[in-house]
Amino acid sequence: MDFIGHHVLSVDQFARADIERIFQVADEMQPYAERTRITRVLEGAILGNMFFEPSTRTRVSFGCAFNLLGGEVRETTEVKASSLAKGESLYDTARVLSGYSDIIVMRHPEAGSVAEFASASRVPVLNAGDGTNEHPSQALLDLYTIRKELEGQNRSIDGLRIALVGDLKHGRAVHSLCKMLGLFDHVEFNLVSPAELAAPADIVEALVAKGHAVNVWGDLQSGIHHVDIVYVTRTQEERFPSQEEADRYRGLFRLNQAIYTEHCEPNTVIMHPLPRDSRAQAQELDVDLNQNPNLAIFRQTDNGVLVRMALFALILNIADEIHNHARPVTWYTAKRTPRT
Amino acid sequence: MDFIGHHVLSVDQFARADIERIFQVADEMQPYAERTRITRVLEGAILGNMFFEPSTRTRVSFGCAFNLLGGEVRETTEVKASSLAKGESLYDTARVLSGYSDIIVMRHPEAGSVAEFASASRVPVLNAGDGTNEHPSQALLDLYTIRKELEGQNRSIDGLRIALVGDLKHGRAVHSLCKMLGLFDHVEFNLVSPAELAAPADIVEALVAKGHAVNVWGDLQSGIHHVDIVYVTRTQEERFPSQEEADRYRGLFRLNQAIYTEHCEPNTVIMHPLPRDSRAQAQELDVDLNQNPNLAIFRQTDNGVLVRMALFALILNIADEIHNHARPVTWYTAKRTPRT
Amino acid sequence: MDFIGHHVLSVDQFARADIERIFQVADEMQPYAERTRITRVLEGAILGNMFFEPSTRTRVSFGCAFNLLGGEVRETTEVKASSLAKGESLYDTARVLSGYSDIIVMRHPEAGSVAEFASASRVPVLNAGDGTNEHPSQALLDLYTIRKELEGQNRSIDGLRIALVGDLKHGRAVHSLCKMLGLFDHVEFNLVSPAELAAPADIVEALVAKGHAVNVWGDLQSGIHHVDIVYVTRTQEERFPSQEEADRYRGLFRLNQAIYTEHCEPNTVIMHPLPRDSRAQAQELDVDLNQNPNLAIFRQTDNGVLVRMALFALILNIADEIHNHARPVTWYTAKRTPRT
Repeated sequence: MDFIGHHVLSVDQFARADIERIFQVADEMQPYAERTRITRVLEGAILGNMFFEPSTRTRVSFGCAFNLLGGEVRETTEVKASSLAKGESLYDTARVLSGYSDIIVMRHPEAGSVAEFASASRVPVLNAGDGTNEHPSQALLDLYTIRKELEGQNRSIDGLRIALVGDLKHGRAVHSLCKMLGLFDHVEFNLVSPAELAAPADIVEALVAKGHAVNVWGDLQSGIHHVDIVYVTRTQEERFPSQEEADRYRGLFRLNQAIYTEHCEPNTVIMHPLPRDSRAQAQELDVDLNQNPNLAIFRQTDNGVLVRMALFALILNIADEIHNHARPVTWYTAKRTPRT
Repeated sequence: MDFIGHHVLSVDQFARADIERIFQVADEMQPYAERTRITRVLEGAILGNMFFEPSTRTRVSFGCAFNLLGGEVRETTEVKASSLAKGESLYDTARVLSGYSDIIVMRHPEAGSVAEFASASRVPVLNAGDGTNEHPSQALLDLYTIRKELEGQNRSIDGLRIALVGDLKHGRAVHSLCKMLGLFDHVEFNLVSPAELAAPADIVEALVAKGHAVNVWGDLQSGIHHVDIVYVTRTQEERFPSQEEADRYRGLFRLNQAIYTEHCEPNTVIMHPLPRDSRAQAQELDVDLNQNPNLAIFRQTDNGVLVRMALFALILNIADEIHNHARPVTWYTAKRTPRT
Repeated sequence: MDFIGHHVLSVDQFARADIERIFQVADEMQPYAERTRITRVLEGAILGNMFFEPSTRTRVSFGCAFNLLGGEVRETTEVKASSLAKGESLYDTARVLSGYSDIIVMRHPEAGSVAEFASASRVPVLNAGDGTNEHPSQALLDLYTIRKELEGQNRSIDGLRIALVGDLKHGRAVHSLCKMLGLFDHVEFNLVSPAELAAPADIVEALVAKGHAVNVWGDLQSGIHHVDIVYVTRTQEERFPSQEEADRYRGLFRLNQAIYTEHCEPNTVIMHPLPRDSRAQAQELDVDLNQNPNLAIFRQTDNGVLVRMALFALILNIADEIHNHARPVTWYTAKRTPRT
């Protein structure tokens, strides 16, 4: 696709070459995000960071990504603070807000709302999550993380073996990631979930049709045996038809260091879309994994900044201009460099 | 008036020459707002954008206007997040906050509160709406829009024929606009409202005393026949003494394309202070007007940025310095240029 | 202490020499805060201004201090808008957010939370208040104000006579100020409070052990007789075991101009951590003191900007670089200069 001036609404709009272009630009963002250099290429540009649903992490990540390119950020954080509550249409909101900034990032609780907003906007719009529908920059940062983690092991996304664990039925992040991985070659998917929360048939069928291997597992241990990546999402008890059914799975999808050591290959990378529920009863990632160097969950969020910088750079057509506006950082930055 | 260092609290403080000066500076802001150039004239300046009542549109518009001049924006968005809730006086709040920034924009739900705040502030304060009282930048952007729309038709504000439609009793925007139009010559006012929501007598009398023509109409069709501008505000059912009285007017003040085509002159400009309630039962502007090139409601909000930039420039005394800090825009901006 | 790259979590981490270094840098910030010059030394740097509890004043003060050094600010203002509400640990929040910015300011309702957050953060963290525990920049700005006010009278912190009035049991500001004053020589403390709200014994004992004089008073008039500073905090009725006990003190700890004139020395400086409850029933500072030139409460908040700029400058190691990035201010600033 041609990125310049275009909206980013769905992972479906990307071909493999587009993804590779985004990742190439994301790589170039590393020195700016890690503060060995700064760039002022977007000095004077304004991002409208419009969050009609709370999301601290995603909002701050987009905002910082724009600041790191030298631009300014104007924000909205609550639907009740907005005219939408007074019966204003998304069309009107888009026409008005797109007169204020150079580009808009938008989150909204309703599926399809961001695309509707974008169709009336006079500036490019990035979907930062529209309900159960899409959150394309999350899928891109997940895939970018997979690529970077495997690079260290001299592997690539082609031929990847991945376990997707947890609620595979409702998880927006998992669905988008599957679609994007499907664009690559010979990926082996290990789908690990309670039967009630299995991945939708259309997603599985599309992967099979493209020639990928799909294995379905009902327990964690079997699914994570021979994979490069374990991608865990929360298994929410309230998703089950009854508490009885939920009880059958209690504790079965929680990954901890002991299970990892016993069942995973030595360099298996652990991922999670975050936030992770760290309370004892949560079916996610145990805190005893925090010292595991293969826990990549915070590298994921760091990579999110790179990917979002890359999207801004490509859409606003300054990817090749960044280094012309660069200079060294003159303040203290040493603690940022070492990352586990 | 002398703008430098002064508060902007009320439309009453402006003479005709002041308004014309603001509009002249607003015209000069066009290339910056439309992104053919950027200016950094206020680099290092800080706006305190203090919204003690929600208003996404006005808040973001002021914030972007300041960013477009190169300045930074610090914000507050909720009264409950502020010390006002703990019994702090507006005097104390003003003394404290005016130590943090170069200029303050303030919205507050209580009439008179912004003037009270301003009297204790050590920096200039712009009223962005104090309850039912005043919202001077809204009135200025409305009048600026009228001027610009008529310019294209080789007409001016002198001799203007305008229809004001809807709730003329409570509408802060309408009252302020009437006051400012009253400063010009030979304006014809067509006041279109239910009898229960008629314009206050003192406003009408002041216009008549200045030699303007004032016609009062009880139905939409008669009032919009021979006018240059139709300015519509919402007719809220809850404003009526009883539902019975409200029911008598249901649908009578809703403008749509069919009524426009049948009753308006070909180039009649349609305005609205926004937000517009686009739900079917709303007595405002029908969405079928969205394709009408004379629908100026989004040009109004665009003009709001220009007018607010002009106010900042005049008060902070950098109106003549802007172009010395200007440079070309280097990022993608093509989609902003064509505006309907 | 070595400031570069370090957290600021508690007043306990400062020796006298550290405080004097902070105040020396704060003095150098004056021309930037008062707008006779601007500096862009932190252009490109990002502050994560993370307020998980509302505090307009402190949040805006830190944000403006960072802007005044040329940096950008990304903010969060509500705990419900954050992942903390979904069971995310402070460890995870810190790991994620510290990937977004160069430095973090954090307020959180729970004691100890900011230190816990800091231990997982990859960038320096400044405690902007963690419940009843600490608020070190408030203590620093109080002490800096004392120093500046006494300078005009050719006195210094050594040998200071201070009255601390109100709720000395729960007041975080008072406790921290006592600790820091304890680092200086021969301070005379006059502790004025209801018996129920007396200062904790460990704080008093520590001051006595260091050779300071501590006098305890049960009424305002006796305690403020021979002091350089009267530091008033609110005496909250709800702090008492019963309403009956609270009633015994009603009005006894409210300072007004008549009491000041009758009982204080002519140049006694009046301070308060703010916000001040200006309602008639509040046991704090009467508004009739507003014209008293020795009322230093707004000079305190102004000084807060200087102290916070100094902390940023020292931690990010640009204290000696500021003037190299300075230039004159070109916009209107005259009204800021005269301060009462």
